[in-house]
Amino acid sequence: MTTFDHAALFRAGLPPAAARFNGFPRYNFIGGHNDAGSVPVEALVEASTNVLRREGRTLATYGLESGPLGYKPLRAFIAGALKARAGIQCAADEILITSGSLQALDLVNALFLAPGDTVVLEGATYGGTLTRLQRLGARYVGVELDRDGMRMDQLVRVLDDLKAKGVRPKFIYTIPTVQNPTGTVMPEARRLELLRIAASYGTAIFEDDCYADLLWEGTRPKAIRALDTRGQVIYCGSFSKSIAPALRIGYLVADWPVMSRILALKTDAGSGALEQMVVAEYASRHFDAHVAELNQVLKGKAEAMAAALEEQFGAAAEFARPSGGIFIWITLPKQVDTTRLGQVALAEGVALNPGAEWSADAAAGRHRLRLCFANAEPANIREGVARLAEICHREFGVPKRSANVAR
Amino acid sequence: MTTFDHAALFRAGLPPAAARFNGFPRYNFIGGHNDAGSVPVEALVEASTNVLRREGRTLATYGLESGPLGYKPLRAFIAGALKARAGIQCAADEILITSGSLQALDLVNALFLAPGDTVVLEGATYGGTLTRLQRLGARYVGVELDRDGMRMDQLVRVLDDLKAKGVRPKFIYTIPTVQNPTGTVMPEARRLELLRIAASYGTAIFEDDCYADLLWEGTRPKAIRALDTRGQVIYCGSFSKSIAPALRIGYLVADWPVMSRILALKTDAGSGALEQMVVAEYASRHFDAHVAELNQVLKGKAEAMAAALEEQFGAAAEFARPSGGIFIWITLPKQVDTTRLGQVALAEGVALNPGAEWSADAAAGRHRLRLCFANAEPANIREGVARLAEICHREFGVPKRSANVAR
Repeated sequence: MTTFDHAALFRAGLPPAAARFNGFPRYNFIGGHNDAGSVPVEALVEASTNVLRREGRTLATYGLESGPLGYKPLRAFIAGALKARAGIQCAADEILITSGSLQALDLVNALFLAPGDTVVLEGATYGGTLTRLQRLGARYVGVELDRDGMRMDQLVRVLDDLKAKGVRPKFIYTIPTVQNPTGTVMPEARRLELLRIAASYGTAIFEDDCYADLLWEGTRPKAIRALDTRGQVIYCGSFSKSIAPALRIGYLVADWPVMSRILALKTDAGSGALEQMVVAEYASRHFDAHVAELNQVLKGKAEAMAAALEEQFGAAAEFARPSGGIFIWITLPKQVDTTRLGQVALAEGVALNPGAEWSADAAAGRHRLRLCFANAEPANIREGVARLAEICHREFGVPKRSANVAR
Repeated sequence: MTTFDHAALFRAGLPPAAARFNGFPRYNFIGGHNDAGSVPVEALVEASTNVLRREGRTLATYGLESGPLGYKPLRAFIAGALKARAGIQCAADEILITSGSLQALDLVNALFLAPGDTVVLEGATYGGTLTRLQRLGARYVGVELDRDGMRMDQLVRVLDDLKAKGVRPKFIYTIPTVQNPTGTVMPEARRLELLRIAASYGTAIFEDDCYADLLWEGTRPKAIRALDTRGQVIYCGSFSKSIAPALRIGYLVADWPVMSRILALKTDAGSGALEQMVVAEYASRHFDAHVAELNQVLKGKAEAMAAALEEQFGAAAEFARPSGGIFIWITLPKQVDTTRLGQVALAEGVALNPGAEWSADAAAGRHRLRLCFANAEPANIREGVARLAEICHREFGVPKRSANVAR
C-alpha cells in the first residue's frame, strides 16, 4: 500500500494517468491493429530458427556486430526494398533501425524542435504526431487536403502567413502515400512541387511512409525522398503495417550529416535485436509475396467496411473508398460530435478514433472519424458498423434511415 | 549529396554527432557486452518456435493481447522471479516491460525531472545515468561509497547540505546489488537505513537492480523495494545482463498510482513483442539454471582479469575482487588520466571506460577506470591487460615494474 507521496515530487505538466487495460473492445476499429490470419507464423518460426542458429551468439554484444544503426542485413534488405518499391537510392549506412516508427518520430522531433517551434502538416494527420508535438510544446499548422493529398496552393498560403509572422517552420511533416487518415496518394508532380516549395522557404521535409507498402490499386509513386536532389527529406518507414504491429521495427533514412546527429540522440543501446534479425531473415525471402497477399485480404476488408457504411449510414457518411491502407476516414453530418460518439460507442463495445484527435484543427475534425478495418473479420465489421449506426442515430439523429429501415 | 542546410534548423543544445561504427576493438573491455558462448541459442530456438506457434497470431495487435504494460506471461515470470530472488511481492500489474532498462531510466527521469532538479546518487555510478541527467539539465550530487555501497553518514550529510540550500532531491538513484562500477553489495541493514533516511527527507528511491542476478559469492540481499513498506521505491531490472544485451527487455516495478503516470509517458505503442514472448518462454523454463551456469563462466573471467591486473600492474592497480557482475573498478596512481589513457589505448585496440565518465565528480574519477571482463575470452583478457599496462607505462610511467619485468 502506498503511503509515500510521490506526486509531490512529480514534474509539472505530466499527462494524465493511464487507465488499466481491460482487453480489446468487441468491435476494434481503432489504432493500427492488423489481420491476425495474415501473420506469417510458420515462416517466422523458420526465420527465427535459421537466424538464431547462424548468428544467435552475437546477441551477447549490444548492437550485435552491426553497430548502433541496427542489424546490417536488415538495413541491406531495406535499402533494396526502398529502391525497388519507392525509387529511393540509399546506402545501408544511411538507414537507422528504430523501435517502431514512433521512435523515428521522437528522434526527428528531438533533432529539430524546441518549445515554441512550428511544424507544418496535413490538416488531417496521424494523431500520435499531434500529441507528440503538443507534449513538446511545439506548434503546428494544418494544410488542407484534397483527393491528391496536401494542397500546394494552401501550403504556400500557410508558409507565407508564417513568413509574415517571422516564423520559419522546422519541417513539413507529410504522409504522402496512403495518407493517415484520408488514404490519399500524392501524385509525383505534386511531390516535385512540394520539394520546390520547401526548398524555397528553407524548411525540411519529414516524409512518413509507414503505409506505403499497403497499396492495392494504382501505382505507388516514387517517394519524395527519391525525387529529392538536395538531401532535404528525412524519410521514415515501418514493418508494423506490412508484417505485424507488435514487432517494433521502423526505420529512418537520412544523409549522414543529419543521421549522425540523429544517432547521437538514440541513447537506447540499440533496438531489439531478435526482432531485427527475424524480420530481416523473413523479409529477405518473403516480403513481396507476403505484402501482395496481405493487400488482397485488406482490400476485402476495406470493401466489407465500405459496404457496411453505405448500408448502415447511407448518404450520411461521406468517405472515399480506400486504394490501400487499413482505415477509412469518414465525414458525418455537422451535428455529430465524434468524440462523444466514441465514448458512448466504446461503452457498447465499438472503438473508433474521433476526428478531433486526427485533425490539426480539432474543431474541423469534430464530425469526422477514422475506422480501422484491418483487425476485424468481415462479419464483425458488419455487426460493429450496424451497432455504431444505431448508437449514432440514438445520440445524434443520424443516420435518419439505414439499411432501408427508418430508425 | 546534401546541399540543403538542415543544421540551421536543428534545435539548440544537441549532442555532438555520432561517429561511424568501425567494428569492435580487439580487446573489448567497455560497456555491458557479455559472454557469447553463454547465449542459450538452442533453447531460444525452441522457445521462439513454441511461442510463435502457440501465440504468433497475436502479433497482429499492438501489445499482443496483454495491453501496454507488456506481455502478461513475461510479467508473471518476473513477479515470480522477483519474489524468489529479491523478496519482492508484486502483482503482474505492478510491472511494466520496457525496451531495456535504459527506457526504464528515461521514464523515471521523465516522471520526476525538470531542468534544475536534483538527484542524489552514488559517487561512482553508471555513466549512462549521468549523461541522461546532464542532457535533461538536472543536477546530481554523489555520495561516497565504501565496501558496503553508498555510505549512510555521507548520504545524510548530502541531504542536509541540500536541505540547507532549500533543495529537495527528487529521488535517490542507487544500484545496491553488484553496484556499477564498484561491484559492492549493500547489506540489508544499510538498505533499511536508506529507506528511513529517504522517508524522513521526503525523497523517493530509484533502485536499479540490473546486475543483481549475477552474484556468485555470498547471498543476494532482499531488494530495497522488498523492504519498503511505504511504496517509496521504484525498482528496475533487466534481462540484458542475465540473458543477452542485444535483447532489449527491462522492467519497472512501482505501485499503480506511480505506474499509471509512468505508463502515460510510454508512448512507443509497446516494447518489442517477439523478444518479450521469447524471453518469457525461455526464462520460465531455464532462467535459474542458465544464470547459475553463466555466473560460473563470469567468475572464471573475473578471476582471469584480476590475475592479469595483478600480474601486469602489481600494486599500481587497486581493486576489489568482484563477487558478481561483469566489471572491475580500478584505481590507478593519481598521475594517470584514464580519459587520455582510454584514447591512446583505443587507438591500439584496447577499449576501456574512463573513470571520469562513471563519477558524479569527474575529477575524482580521473585516475580510475572500469573494465568489463564478460565479453572477452581469458586469453584475450590477459593479452589486453598486458597491452594496457604497456601503454599506461609508456604514457604515465605506471606501472613501474610488472610481470616481474622492469619496464
